[in-house]
Amino acid sequence: MKFKNIVATTLVLGLSTAALAQSIGKPEDQIRWRQSGYQFMNWNMQRIKANIEGTYNKDQVIQAANTVAAIANSGMGALYAPGTDKGSGWHETNVKPEFFQQDKKPRLGEVASAFNKEANELAKVAATGDAAAVKTQFGKLGSACKGCHDDFRKEIK
Amino acid sequence: MKFKNIVATTLVLGLSTAALAQSIGKPEDQIRWRQSGYQFMNWNMQRIKANIEGTYNKDQVIQAANTVAAIANSGMGALYAPGTDKGSGWHETNVKPEFFQQDKKPRLGEVASAFNKEANELAKVAATGDAAAVKTQFGKLGSACKGCHDDFRKEIK
Repeated sequence: MKFKNIVATTLVLGLSTAALAQSIGKPEDQIRWRQSGYQFMNWNMQRIKANIEGTYNKDQVIQAANTVAAIANSGMGALYAPGTDKGSGWHETNVKPEFFQQDKKPRLGEVASAFNKEANELAKVAATGDAAAVKTQFGKLGSACKGCHDDFRKEIK
Repeated sequence: MKFKNIVATTLVLGLSTAALAQSIGKPEDQIRWRQSGYQFMNWNMQRIKANIEGTYNKDQVIQAANTVAAIANSGMGALYAPGTDKGSGWHETNVKPEFFQQDKKPRLGEVASAFNKEANELAKVAATGDAAAVKTQFGKLGSACKGCHDDFRKEIK
């Protein structure tokens, strides 16, 4: 189970040796890029929420869900290279020290896998245009986001 | 031709009435979100460049090209609502006033269409794993980016 989770972390976060060898950017670049990825997902999550709560536009939800899935699949783990546990991108990083701790890797693998799974599932469900199913799956993705925030992100002031 | 370009702008930038009706966020949110989208593409473009110039990792290039294509297809035009011609997101917007001018819409349509076309083509080429073809297509996408920067983005200090 532990090994499985480590493998999952490696795959999902792109933390393979090959990926790290290709890791680019200074720590401040990596922090800015990952903050940008989360912010762009933020927009897309808010768009989906607005569609669920207001007038449902199938095409817009598909666009938004596909974007979140692509970012989830982008291998953002490469943006957490050693030395990026502290420092500023657009602002000081909110990452907790636990993210970089060996003994937390299984939990990191779990939350990262859950996030990828639910994001890809939302893209599939969005394609059907079934607003009720999107609402349910959007809730699951939100819970997956929260799972990581609770354990690995400092409270944002 | 003019009408075609306007339609292209509408489709590519998501500036349809429906999309604007769903436009969300304050001007500062929209500016921050679009700056985040461009920064996240920046990371992915730099990753592709590093792969072309260094050791070529097919899977990493696919991840990066798919991410750029998804952002290109995300309908970012909705993040240029009236009132977002000035102001700050992460920093003061670099958009030129021309972006919002009626008489520049055909040109905006051209550059937006070119960007989408080349980004989607790069994702297709990346899937083949042909490094030489990726290099050529990456150059075409870079030119498409520059086409928009030249006309619609202020010089970044």
